[in-house]
Amino acid sequence: MTEQPLYIRVHPKDNVAIVVNGAGLPAGTVFPDGLTLREFVPQGHKVNLADLEEGAPILRYGQVIGTAVRAVPRGSWIEESLVRMPAAPSLEHLPLATEVPPKLPPLEGYTFDGYRNADGTAGTRNLLGISTSVQCVAGVVEFAVKRIREELLPRFPNVDDVVPLTHTYGCGVAITAPGAAVPIRTVRNIARNPNFGGEPMVVGLGCEKMIPEWLLSEDRPAPAAGNTDSIVRLQDEGQQGFGEIIASILEMAEKRLVELNRRTRTECPASDLVVGLQCGGSDAFSGVTANPAVGYAADLLVRAGATVMFSEVTEVRDAIHLLTPRAANEDVARALIREMAWYDEYLQEGASDRSANTTPGNKRGGLANIVEKALGSVVKSGSSAISGVLAPGERVDRKGLIFAATPASDFICGTLQLASGMTVEVFTTGRGTPYGLAAVPVIKMATRKALSARWHDLIDIDAGRIATGEATIEQVGWELFQLILDVASGRKQTWADHWGLHNALTLFNPGPVT
Amino acid sequence: MTEQPLYIRVHPKDNVAIVVNGAGLPAGTVFPDGLTLREFVPQGHKVNLADLEEGAPILRYGQVIGTAVRAVPRGSWIEESLVRMPAAPSLEHLPLATEVPPKLPPLEGYTFDGYRNADGTAGTRNLLGISTSVQCVAGVVEFAVKRIREELLPRFPNVDDVVPLTHTYGCGVAITAPGAAVPIRTVRNIARNPNFGGEPMVVGLGCEKMIPEWLLSEDRPAPAAGNTDSIVRLQDEGQQGFGEIIASILEMAEKRLVELNRRTRTECPASDLVVGLQCGGSDAFSGVTANPAVGYAADLLVRAGATVMFSEVTEVRDAIHLLTPRAANEDVARALIREMAWYDEYLQEGASDRSANTTPGNKRGGLANIVEKALGSVVKSGSSAISGVLAPGERVDRKGLIFAATPASDFICGTLQLASGMTVEVFTTGRGTPYGLAAVPVIKMATRKALSARWHDLIDIDAGRIATGEATIEQVGWELFQLILDVASGRKQTWADHWGLHNALTLFNPGPVT
Repeated sequence: MTEQPLYIRVHPKDNVAIVVNGAGLPAGTVFPDGLTLREFVPQGHKVNLADLEEGAPILRYGQVIGTAVRAVPRGSWIEESLVRMPAAPSLEHLPLATEVPPKLPPLEGYTFDGYRNADGTAGTRNLLGISTSVQCVAGVVEFAVKRIREELLPRFPNVDDVVPLTHTYGCGVAITAPGAAVPIRTVRNIARNPNFGGEPMVVGLGCEKMIPEWLLSEDRPAPAAGNTDSIVRLQDEGQQGFGEIIASILEMAEKRLVELNRRTRTECPASDLVVGLQCGGSDAFSGVTANPAVGYAADLLVRAGATVMFSEVTEVRDAIHLLTPRAANEDVARALIREMAWYDEYLQEGASDRSANTTPGNKRGGLANIVEKALGSVVKSGSSAISGVLAPGERVDRKGLIFAATPASDFICGTLQLASGMTVEVFTTGRGTPYGLAAVPVIKMATRKALSARWHDLIDIDAGRIATGEATIEQVGWELFQLILDVASGRKQTWADHWGLHNALTLFNPGPVT
Repeated sequence: MTEQPLYIRVHPKDNVAIVVNGAGLPAGTVFPDGLTLREFVPQGHKVNLADLEEGAPILRYGQVIGTAVRAVPRGSWIEESLVRMPAAPSLEHLPLATEVPPKLPPLEGYTFDGYRNADGTAGTRNLLGISTSVQCVAGVVEFAVKRIREELLPRFPNVDDVVPLTHTYGCGVAITAPGAAVPIRTVRNIARNPNFGGEPMVVGLGCEKMIPEWLLSEDRPAPAAGNTDSIVRLQDEGQQGFGEIIASILEMAEKRLVELNRRTRTECPASDLVVGLQCGGSDAFSGVTANPAVGYAADLLVRAGATVMFSEVTEVRDAIHLLTPRAANEDVARALIREMAWYDEYLQEGASDRSANTTPGNKRGGLANIVEKALGSVVKSGSSAISGVLAPGERVDRKGLIFAATPASDFICGTLQLASGMTVEVFTTGRGTPYGLAAVPVIKMATRKALSARWHDLIDIDAGRIATGEATIEQVGWELFQLILDVASGRKQTWADHWGLHNALTLFNPGPVT
């Protein structure tokens, strides 16, 4: 049986479309509308639907993703080298909150079984997080966590796990540099993630630059000595050697486990969810299958009163003119622009620019440049008003659709979303990644059926069915929404959690190391 | 029994000395030479031996560590706030190779039992290292390593362990930024560390920016697809799902284990050692007890023909005028200056300078500023000529005393020294740190008896005996030299290895993330 040749044109104005068929399509292929391929076009790559003059705009998503380097006749493979990348949209004179979407109709009655916290937040897991003020203590904390898992955890069946919150920050860094505020607040806010359910427990060294007390307070108290109710300091003189250090950590952990074990899941409204959205290993399908389905689910979450965060500055930068009009008010629009400008400058200081985004895999997957990638990436944000903006690592303080500014790096973005208070993450991928986090469940959605089939035990939900017409964006969006509620409730397990695949916390440190 | 009051003056020109006694000394204390304390002085902190005028130079190690903020009468506590920090030595007009130390007398007949490699190097451990091209694969590699340890390793008794070489680099970074050369060569050179004994084994994703092949070659080949003899790529289409991915990794690991298991320890001359020196959690004793003993051992190693690396640019910068004269030739001296200048600029771009070094713990330990810390730190380099300079992450190519430029951050410095080819690390500490590495044994030396006593099961060798006169620098230096040979041979185990305390590989990435 021969497969019908198929392309997807996203927007009526587009003069390019992407090839759907699995192995690509050969020269001479005739599409139902009469378009004939002049050469082989790989899956996900672009074919032009009209002749292009040299310098002509190339349109996808109804937007200019570049101009033609030379004249290209209809039916050609619009390969990366044929696309001249345009300048990024200017940050001057952007429309501010000019097209605020009307409030979407409320969606009522959806709930999940979560863990209610004293501060009003709700967790999706009941975890003991052990925070650290410096990498120096990482080996000791991992040793202690192994002991806690083996010796203590079996006695506390309501606690899901113990998570060592180790990182590479805390000393050997310019702690007063302007950029240091980011990693410091990130570590502090991760300790406060709703999935850790209460007062942080911190293991520190004693001589480090990031003072353990800073993890408990937004003020920055002076360094103290000795242990406290929430801090075990390895250099505490009351402890004789490694044995007593480990005993101190286990003792504090046991007290926390007693408290955490009192908690059970209770019905919480869907509005208590804080869902982080991310994509990684994107391809040309990301913007037409998985990300639109995520956008649909984002709208459902916003309608249910939840908090939804989209992120990744360099994958938003080239679509910023589409976002500032959607800001709920001018302040939010200005905050969006502020984050873009900050990142432009950050990249420039490193002799780079936004074009440093797009990977070899993105390109093999059909994405010509960061403009095309960004236009497909922001689709995750759905269609609601943008109600707030967070600088990297800030904690979320409102409901609705939030832009949480982060680098696009998967593991850095996820770490910052954790700090912002994320309790479920949705991650779309075209090329495939085994990404996972220890602190929150990560639902992975594939953009292509081939990937979902091959990675049947790593991908949680397949959006590739949208490209083939087997499912609609709305259907997959609803499936995802339901899966979020099930995973948040502990009724379904993600593949990453099934295998225990968890990436490292990776801090964003724009400041220098010393 | 009252303890005799004791101070240490390092150099005859010094007008300050540090208090040795454990709890500090009270006002009114009279030293044997008649000096009387005007106020309490904590252990390790400075007392002035002569009246100081306002603006007078304060001398320690025979060098100016600052000037007096105000007039201070003899016998006072020269507390941090009384010391105005001088400017760093200018990098212009430094003496180049003007006082090259004569070659030290050779030390013959010292050997260790190591693992001989095909490239002529010798390892101190027989490890299977599994390199990674990107953080995305970290969870999968850790899962695989657990399986390898449980299912394969017991059949290969000559192999010490399997080490997952995970890191946070590889994608979401500006891979063509000028700074990217550092993390890229670091990951590649770690894979080639002598303790991994051969051709690297790499796990990659497939779409990442740092191409797995770059870990096998200094050229940067274009991205390929599929698995090879040395690379498992998770996105390889030949693998169906997680089960087959893990099977591919285990299959490659088993082939490597068969090879590694053929190796046994053989007698190697001490000249095959590559010893990294580092200090962390320093105090005022670092420069008078542990670091001089390390310096003595460094001279012994150089006399035996070995390679010894000292590092930590910000802890060398203020003593650079003492090092450029010791360079073996003018090129080496210029390379030293080049690394200082590069770091000055790097810090300046982050709105910082060398004063960002010194931690709260350093200060509590008596160190007034980075000048005093650096003068105590460079003592580790001993007295031989400096035979070469490495930029961060470069592989060592010669014998003798090498300056391997790295940040002072313990975990970044150790990671870069691993890349340079270190096979044993010596780490001195005054405040105490449980630092360790999975890839090479780390010998920890304390600067103070109190720390060695309290951390009896974390500190491997006590240099505090030097301060009390119970041992000489030479004695402790010889003890360390012998311990290095024993640890390198696997005859003695460090405490960090006993407990399995291992810090994360932490890459130095001076470039931006995206």
